[in-house]
Amino acid sequence: MNACVISIGNELLIGQTINTNAAWIGQKLSDIGLLLDTVITVGDEAQAIVEALDAALAKHTVAIVTGGLGPTHDDITKKVITDYFGGKLVFHQPVLDKIKSYFEARGYQMPANNEGQAWLPDNAEILPNKVGSAQGMLFRKNEKYCFVLPGVPREMKYIMETSILPILREQIRDQVILHYTWRTAGVPESVLAEKLDNVAEIEQHGRLAFLPKYTGVDLRLTIKAGTIQNVETHRRAADQHIRAKVDKYIYGTGDIPLEQVVGEILRSRKQTVAVAESCTGGLICHKMTSIAGSSDYFLGGMITYSNDQKIKALGVSEATLVAHGAVSEQTAVEMASGVRHRVDADYGLSVTGIAGPGGGTAEKPVGLVYIGLATPTETRAHRYMFANDREINQERSAATALLLLFKALKGDG
Amino acid sequence: MNACVISIGNELLIGQTINTNAAWIGQKLSDIGLLLDTVITVGDEAQAIVEALDAALAKHTVAIVTGGLGPTHDDITKKVITDYFGGKLVFHQPVLDKIKSYFEARGYQMPANNEGQAWLPDNAEILPNKVGSAQGMLFRKNEKYCFVLPGVPREMKYIMETSILPILREQIRDQVILHYTWRTAGVPESVLAEKLDNVAEIEQHGRLAFLPKYTGVDLRLTIKAGTIQNVETHRRAADQHIRAKVDKYIYGTGDIPLEQVVGEILRSRKQTVAVAESCTGGLICHKMTSIAGSSDYFLGGMITYSNDQKIKALGVSEATLVAHGAVSEQTAVEMASGVRHRVDADYGLSVTGIAGPGGGTAEKPVGLVYIGLATPTETRAHRYMFANDREINQERSAATALLLLFKALKGDG
Repeated sequence: MNACVISIGNELLIGQTINTNAAWIGQKLSDIGLLLDTVITVGDEAQAIVEALDAALAKHTVAIVTGGLGPTHDDITKKVITDYFGGKLVFHQPVLDKIKSYFEARGYQMPANNEGQAWLPDNAEILPNKVGSAQGMLFRKNEKYCFVLPGVPREMKYIMETSILPILREQIRDQVILHYTWRTAGVPESVLAEKLDNVAEIEQHGRLAFLPKYTGVDLRLTIKAGTIQNVETHRRAADQHIRAKVDKYIYGTGDIPLEQVVGEILRSRKQTVAVAESCTGGLICHKMTSIAGSSDYFLGGMITYSNDQKIKALGVSEATLVAHGAVSEQTAVEMASGVRHRVDADYGLSVTGIAGPGGGTAEKPVGLVYIGLATPTETRAHRYMFANDREINQERSAATALLLLFKALKGDG
Repeated sequence: MNACVISIGNELLIGQTINTNAAWIGQKLSDIGLLLDTVITVGDEAQAIVEALDAALAKHTVAIVTGGLGPTHDDITKKVITDYFGGKLVFHQPVLDKIKSYFEARGYQMPANNEGQAWLPDNAEILPNKVGSAQGMLFRKNEKYCFVLPGVPREMKYIMETSILPILREQIRDQVILHYTWRTAGVPESVLAEKLDNVAEIEQHGRLAFLPKYTGVDLRLTIKAGTIQNVETHRRAADQHIRAKVDKYIYGTGDIPLEQVVGEILRSRKQTVAVAESCTGGLICHKMTSIAGSSDYFLGGMITYSNDQKIKALGVSEATLVAHGAVSEQTAVEMASGVRHRVDADYGLSVTGIAGPGGGTAEKPVGLVYIGLATPTETRAHRYMFANDREINQERSAATALLLLFKALKGDG
């Protein structure tokens, strides 16, 4: 069995929307051992949708179509696919009642436009959507499955989890696929490859890929076997090889983010952190608090853009700001130490830099960032030169700050 | 002329990486009036790449391939495509020298692995990459263009902007495509469609699409015409119609985010804002400071996760926290007012709520959020019930807070 996702929507093609649905579906299919090997993205055009269905069903057992089920005139997916499988749309009063009560529960009367969503194919199984008004559908033909879902992520996820994944799980028996990931930080891709030494040996256990991110390089091994036991044997052997060579760079496995690893260490030690951000403007706090349960160790943050705020909220001395400037090692040190004391946390992290595009000078160019760390025993700051791009500077600064804290917590910082 | 993007990488199929490259390329092509009508995503497998090239070049003038040009063994794109077009790889000393000096400038010696990146096709034009070690390539055959780029976003963007877009711009003469977007907030998709009334009339000028986001619904019109003048005539006529019907919901056009619109109003009035965040944990500050130049109006933020911090950093009274709890209208009011005074800003925004998954009770369930706003003349807070998902609760809270501030600035809040 293999699968193809068809993503429908002009907004995906002109870059107005990023196709996060395909990634999410790919991950869920991968989790149940079903291989997604193609994603086709096309616009809201009947011919393009038909051609994509032809291509998908020629080579795949399962097609999962998302998008174009909304209430407005540009949503043509349902009609096109019903026609494709030789059916017609019929009116469902119970579905209309549900859509009406869905709107009423949110304090609206159902707009007339939504009535069309109660017309559903007579040749498909309806997959209920309790979090929106567009129902899911399953067309079956010649041992092939064609699932059709709304493009709104929340609704797509609901129908995938309540209807589609259970159906697919039933069908998968004779093969297990595991994607296993080791996450590394602080080492470039090619250096990591050199240190791993004998990649061919690791590849006796599966396919190895190097995936560079802002935070570091992920090593991903794809293992296929007939049983879970065999997969696990391969995973363990590969893990031994990899850890023997590059263990010191590995901060976690799977898709765990560095902010979660850091958080788990802090929680296990009953320690806390506070963050003072200038050029990252809240990104580090946002990353840390995107982790459920972060209130156990994340006490607070100060986003101090102005010098005045650095003085008032963090206690940075005016003399330091005058002598060295807001973007300096000394200021980063006082910010880290200041937030640690003011918030009464065990660790204080700070970032000050020139994110750009404006604000750079010959002496302090865009991309110059100081990152400070105050621990129970010392306070220090490091200097970095990142890129000429605001977003990259903010992302790299945040990743580097988390890495500094991680290393300090592990005692090798 | 039309275009197809081929995204290569197993990480895209198993959901480990979201395909942001395709969206970015789609937007850039759309800006120059070249229609991207298909994206095909496949894994790092020779046969899959060849089939995608066959499909792309059968129906498109331009194929843009990204991914799989890295230094490690799983990067097979260059070899496969060189073979596909009947060429072979040859060694380029000047390219090797550049890669070496690229590494040296970053303080590393070039790892041996990267030497392979100096082997380049003899049947392609090389498109220089000054921000990384994988060069871009252009294969031409039968009036068709096949561009090949690294998948690292920064390197892909560099080669697109310095080499590919200039080449394509030259080729496009006889058709102008404009995607024009009106951004609305505070109105559901189907209500907006009803209020627009006669969509067919708007569609005399182009194709209209409704795109729901966390922040609201975008209306996008795609206009095709022979000249820029004709496109502009259509755009103006559609703009008149749309503004006559739904002007009060429109906060901007194009891809301008609400935080930028809010920022521009503040800057034009020489006013400032400060933000106190609890359950959004820095997301609002991050959004505001992701805008270049935000230091003109964004003074600072306090991320106060703990009650203690709400008292110390914002001056929320202990009595309020005891009587009403941290998630309450009263606390939101005191947070907004507190951050406004402490940071000495014209406006204070605050958010306190239960993002989930933990922390909910029968009385205060996950998804309950209070958003406060302190203006120069009044302070108030509103109650919201969002979803059962941490990420959605954080995103909706941030969007709603920005919308509240926007409405207050416009005087209709």
